[in-house]
Amino acid sequence: MVPAVPVENDSFLAACRGRTPARRPIWIMRQAGRYLPEYRAVRARVSFETLCRAPDLAAEVTVQPIERFDLDAAILFSDILTILDAFGIDVRFDPGPKIARPVRTPADVAALPEADLSACAYVYDAVGACVERLAGRVPLIGFAGAPLTVASYMIEGQGSRDFRHTKVLGWRDPEAFQHLLAQVARATAGYLERQVAAGAHALQVFESWGGALPPDVYRRIAWPHTRSVLEAALATGVPVVAFLRGGEGLLRAVAGDLPQGDLVIGIDWTVPMATAVSIVGPERVVQGNLDPMALFAPRGVLERLAGDVIAAAGPARGHVFNLGHGISKDTDPAQVAALVDYVHRS
Amino acid sequence: MVPAVPVENDSFLAACRGRTPARRPIWIMRQAGRYLPEYRAVRARVSFETLCRAPDLAAEVTVQPIERFDLDAAILFSDILTILDAFGIDVRFDPGPKIARPVRTPADVAALPEADLSACAYVYDAVGACVERLAGRVPLIGFAGAPLTVASYMIEGQGSRDFRHTKVLGWRDPEAFQHLLAQVARATAGYLERQVAAGAHALQVFESWGGALPPDVYRRIAWPHTRSVLEAALATGVPVVAFLRGGEGLLRAVAGDLPQGDLVIGIDWTVPMATAVSIVGPERVVQGNLDPMALFAPRGVLERLAGDVIAAAGPARGHVFNLGHGISKDTDPAQVAALVDYVHRS
Repeated sequence: MVPAVPVENDSFLAACRGRTPARRPIWIMRQAGRYLPEYRAVRARVSFETLCRAPDLAAEVTVQPIERFDLDAAILFSDILTILDAFGIDVRFDPGPKIARPVRTPADVAALPEADLSACAYVYDAVGACVERLAGRVPLIGFAGAPLTVASYMIEGQGSRDFRHTKVLGWRDPEAFQHLLAQVARATAGYLERQVAAGAHALQVFESWGGALPPDVYRRIAWPHTRSVLEAALATGVPVVAFLRGGEGLLRAVAGDLPQGDLVIGIDWTVPMATAVSIVGPERVVQGNLDPMALFAPRGVLERLAGDVIAAAGPARGHVFNLGHGISKDTDPAQVAALVDYVHRS
Repeated sequence: MVPAVPVENDSFLAACRGRTPARRPIWIMRQAGRYLPEYRAVRARVSFETLCRAPDLAAEVTVQPIERFDLDAAILFSDILTILDAFGIDVRFDPGPKIARPVRTPADVAALPEADLSACAYVYDAVGACVERLAGRVPLIGFAGAPLTVASYMIEGQGSRDFRHTKVLGWRDPEAFQHLLAQVARATAGYLERQVAAGAHALQVFESWGGALPPDVYRRIAWPHTRSVLEAALATGVPVVAFLRGGEGLLRAVAGDLPQGDLVIGIDWTVPMATAVSIVGPERVVQGNLDPMALFAPRGVLERLAGDVIAAAGPARGHVFNLGHGISKDTDPAQVAALVDYVHRS
């Protein structure tokens, strides 16, 4: 494994490891994205798919928000569905993901090949290119989707609001469903290990659709696979953020079963930060969780809302500031600059 | 006030009032809807708007599921946005609601007339027509949206996933926002009173978008208005169901501040029923909360999932069976018949 390039600004890594950082770190989910004119300029030339698959371009947009704002971490520009290349599953973005042949039946699951992670070499190359371009300024976060989240796209074939096919497969053939989640989990563990080998300083696992299932069901059928991915990620030695989107219910359901180690819990905006801290315990590092819509509020209100999150999260030692969901494409970048400045002054 | 027509099947009303019903009652949110071929046949002739505004047709489709299934209550066919007629706000359905001139600024709020509830006379007429057509077979439930839910459409001008304009108005001008919610709450109270006067045997208040705000914020800025509507509805003397969609967080936030009286708490499918009962207390009647997707499961699984809800909800006395969200338009009516039969046998 390539030893990670040391970074000048280690506030993010220090906070993740429970050490006192030089300042309260902040990064922003989807910070390399459509709200930035420089990102839109790149996208005017190339498609989303091309951007994900071209390491130099991916590195260019990954670094864009670092050039513009005083952020404390970069996150690889990629997509949670790039891992499907390892299964030979073709995904198009139009603009939402579309999979021509979804995995719907036990036969579909049985026919799925074991993941060939070399098919995602462009992702690890992008990690390397990002680290080179960042030149030690801030750490790079690699990422993957959690097994249920990724599997739900494989099954639905696209974004879904009711997750009907996912649930029906789980009810109709629980063994095939478990087999699929386990297979995705194994692939995801290897995928994250390769990102760390390529130089990622930290990892985030996105359980973006944790709310697809009631919390007790999630805990029973999906969480063991997410947990195994988190354990594998932590075993690489880098800090790992588990972004658990699914409200207070999901957080309560898994809080008693979190892996040990440098695990940071990413809190979605629907859970008051004070509630989240009381659920996961004050010793646990938390990330989040400002409502992305707060960036549309007047400056004074934005600062008050960010201040509320900071006051509830407590001392910088146990807190990585972030939004509680990806930033909206309609956000004014000047508001982001103001937020970053405010968090660092707090 | 017209005394309510007595009903032969009073299981629903008995359960709502905390008395032991002859059998565990069941009705289904959106039971008069697109999954029924006889409903689609009517809609092939008239638009959604026309159907809402024509009392005889609204009554016809209200009664359709009662003719087909052994349900224990009918719910008025209408829409939570019909009340906007009282404010002179024109809503089109395409198929989602579209409002030409949303209420976005303090000036927009100030310009809003006090509600003229006579503009919704067709709704009260539809209630009367339903009661006549039902001929005492089962009780009729009237309904309205809760103030935040209705106001969010007034502000956004359409369905929303991020409620940006709603939040920005609340942050930018909290007084105008409160003024708007209070005005909608007053209108809603009168609107529900008129439905009871027209013969409705019970009422449901839909807080469909309670999850738009973090639970602590919801409790502070929206709940007092919902609570005032519930109190006014309960003062009519009929049982009132508060459908609180917003997961475990919202339920916990308001559980300590529920009005007294024949108030039933409608639980969304994301909250395990056992958790819901522990939050609202075992003395409180609950409604719900089967995942609508369960109707796509094989019959045996459907029955097991319904059985889990029943086991967690406890004795029939304190439970009205329902889904935890509106029924999907793709549902097979035969599955609904099987569910109704199963619930009555349990």
